[in-house]
Amino acid sequence: MKQIDVLVIGGSAAGIVAATTARSFYPDRKVMLIRKEEKVLVPCGIPYMFGTLGGSEKNVVPDQVLSGAGVDLVVGEAVSIDQEKKTCSLADGSVLQFEKLVLATGSTPVQPGWLPGTDLENVFFIPKNKEYLDNQSIEFESCNKVVVIGGGFIGVEMADELVKAGKDVTIVELLPHVLSLAFDEELAMKAEEALRKRGVKIVSGRKVQKIVGDGKVSAVLLDDGETLDADAVILSVGYQPNSELAKNAGLGVNDLGFIRVNEYMRTENPDIFAVGDCAEKFSFITRTPKRTMLASTSCAEARIAGMNLYKLSTVRSFTGTLSIFCTAIGDEAFGAAGVTENLANERGFEVVTGLFEGIDRHPGSLPDTHVQIVKLIASVDSGIILGGEVYGGSSVGELTNLIGFIIQNRMTVDAVLTSQIGTHPLLTAPPTAYPLIKAAESIARKRIG
Amino acid sequence: MKQIDVLVIGGSAAGIVAATTARSFYPDRKVMLIRKEEKVLVPCGIPYMFGTLGGSEKNVVPDQVLSGAGVDLVVGEAVSIDQEKKTCSLADGSVLQFEKLVLATGSTPVQPGWLPGTDLENVFFIPKNKEYLDNQSIEFESCNKVVVIGGGFIGVEMADELVKAGKDVTIVELLPHVLSLAFDEELAMKAEEALRKRGVKIVSGRKVQKIVGDGKVSAVLLDDGETLDADAVILSVGYQPNSELAKNAGLGVNDLGFIRVNEYMRTENPDIFAVGDCAEKFSFITRTPKRTMLASTSCAEARIAGMNLYKLSTVRSFTGTLSIFCTAIGDEAFGAAGVTENLANERGFEVVTGLFEGIDRHPGSLPDTHVQIVKLIASVDSGIILGGEVYGGSSVGELTNLIGFIIQNRMTVDAVLTSQIGTHPLLTAPPTAYPLIKAAESIARKRIG
Repeated sequence: MKQIDVLVIGGSAAGIVAATTARSFYPDRKVMLIRKEEKVLVPCGIPYMFGTLGGSEKNVVPDQVLSGAGVDLVVGEAVSIDQEKKTCSLADGSVLQFEKLVLATGSTPVQPGWLPGTDLENVFFIPKNKEYLDNQSIEFESCNKVVVIGGGFIGVEMADELVKAGKDVTIVELLPHVLSLAFDEELAMKAEEALRKRGVKIVSGRKVQKIVGDGKVSAVLLDDGETLDADAVILSVGYQPNSELAKNAGLGVNDLGFIRVNEYMRTENPDIFAVGDCAEKFSFITRTPKRTMLASTSCAEARIAGMNLYKLSTVRSFTGTLSIFCTAIGDEAFGAAGVTENLANERGFEVVTGLFEGIDRHPGSLPDTHVQIVKLIASVDSGIILGGEVYGGSSVGELTNLIGFIIQNRMTVDAVLTSQIGTHPLLTAPPTAYPLIKAAESIARKRIG
Repeated sequence: MKQIDVLVIGGSAAGIVAATTARSFYPDRKVMLIRKEEKVLVPCGIPYMFGTLGGSEKNVVPDQVLSGAGVDLVVGEAVSIDQEKKTCSLADGSVLQFEKLVLATGSTPVQPGWLPGTDLENVFFIPKNKEYLDNQSIEFESCNKVVVIGGGFIGVEMADELVKAGKDVTIVELLPHVLSLAFDEELAMKAEEALRKRGVKIVSGRKVQKIVGDGKVSAVLLDDGETLDADAVILSVGYQPNSELAKNAGLGVNDLGFIRVNEYMRTENPDIFAVGDCAEKFSFITRTPKRTMLASTSCAEARIAGMNLYKLSTVRSFTGTLSIFCTAIGDEAFGAAGVTENLANERGFEVVTGLFEGIDRHPGSLPDTHVQIVKLIASVDSGIILGGEVYGGSSVGELTNLIGFIIQNRMTVDAVLTSQIGTHPLLTAPPTAYPLIKAAESIARKRIG
């Protein structure tokens, strides 16, 4: 029986980072990563395989990331774990003995049981599976009309890429706007505007009743009786954690199906950790359980697990999931961190918001100047920033991360208002009207008023 | 005699923000801004008037910024202040009575007394003066060979713009590298490489002995006897604070010539504030007096003065200048916040650094992917991040601001290492190899090693 110090199950972002961090902080330990897939896709790059990247080959994580860090890679399927013996059995019958185990088993697209017709030909999901998606790519070639069910990030990005590839694309979203979990109405409507400008049709506030077809999909029937013709349907209505392996081994799983972990990403068994989409999540702000699955959060969890494997550190622990999103639709980009105004209200916070619309270069006469909007959501009692939303150009990703750091540091509106920033004509908004600061100013005025 | 609640002297970034913030937080007060200039230039946009913007007209701050906020604008020159009577006399003989006064008198290019030849024709400075610069633009048209003395940000940006306009440009820098005050050697050399690629010649580690010419400049003589032919010379060897008005009024001025202020930006007279290039500065990190003049810092100071005019707030005070710079050379961008490794060592800190080179999109096969480098400088005793430097593409400005927030929050390496970020293929580095986090990881490994 093979002896391994640290065994990691799962080869996507969380697994890779857990394994390489373990090697980095415990260089004397032998670390092995097992994964099912021959090749692993960059998860967030998946929508871009259908247009911008022109296929999946350019979206493969190079195994050099693992080999370069001294992580042993095994392609195989873990079928069971024995907590007592500290062993993991593989599908090929071999058994591995571990000292520490990290579960990074990921997630699978939700198959909506309530929806008839999901088993028709040309009804697709977006799993992180290269073979499935390669095959889907081929099938898409003969399709013209595509209906995307679910207007979250995956749905929106798929729609935008497929329209770029010449398809006729409609998004159907149950909520009043696409991306409603990440953005309040102001920015969600801007995203819809951007999508429509690119040729994507949006049907929102409507429920799909049935996917229609005879063997193969031919249409999507909405709750009000309207029918949308479709050669293909993409179902992007969420993902569920892959926690069966853990559950079968007797590890605790929460009501949402995620493997229970504490702030060191440790399961109920001190030698077993879980990270990424399969691991339990709590909101940094609202402290309620969350379903948000993001590669970036997964990597933060994985780093924390990797560092705490052999000795716990209170300053290297996880303090709750701060959802930080960003995406681009054409040359327009959207980002959000923390809670939306809607969610804050729903969870019982009393909030005050500020929004400022400016530009992301200065003077605005410079080429490539883009409108930039920042909305901040702050707690009335403490003035602490609970969330932020950003619209703009290519700097939106890092500006959203900046807001993420503001929230993680529990900065108040006054702290932001007195903060120093750097500005440059070609790279940022003007110092006199930097939207983040102006949004904070707008809140400060309301709080004193 | 005209009675004004808040009188602001100076119409550039600091003056504008002080005046508009005063109106915003004290809407019942009458605010007047006096400035000498008919039209005010966006200060950081000045270098770009010589190439990208094609003139100064597109680089004018619209007066609507003031009128829209209800600030009265007077074009005129303040010649003296009477502290006792609380009056300000203008060059036209009129006298204004104020309740609160904000000095935002700015800075003037240093005229190096030690250097012969600075009075020759075609020796130029870069003052924030539209008329002077418009005239200089015209003179430039007939010049081919330009020598820029001083390789700070202004010198580098001017050189890059003039080369773009077809000139033969050489930068002469006393220190071993250009931009040495903002960057350590690794990134300073990258900036030099970028400049050379664009056609700028660099002569560094050499001193100018004399500007040579008969009436008009013809060459620049270096200390080792080498002569550089020149039709024009740009002197960008620093700026000095305009503090005569304050000094003559009896207000305290420090050894470097800046108007003394406390953390509320108040001078020794509780009714008089000073902000921007003319106001005293201390380093956020090293606590020593500083000469750094930045529009962005000026605006932070001005906001603080504006909010504290009528009532002081301990949570709306200034905690020291954190130099945050960024600039672009072609499509390569450079940013820095806090101290460099060199400066930290010089001031007596024991530091440990980490540097990571990655990419700013993922997968790297995406169009417009740019190399991204982050260097972090941390204190050995506390692990607190003291500085950071960034190289990359269009997201460098906001990524540098993010590092600025890390420093202002006195975050430790561990805090950064466990922070959550958001990532997106088209907008950021990959979550598995986000250079900021990887640089922190590299420091953490060294500290435990």
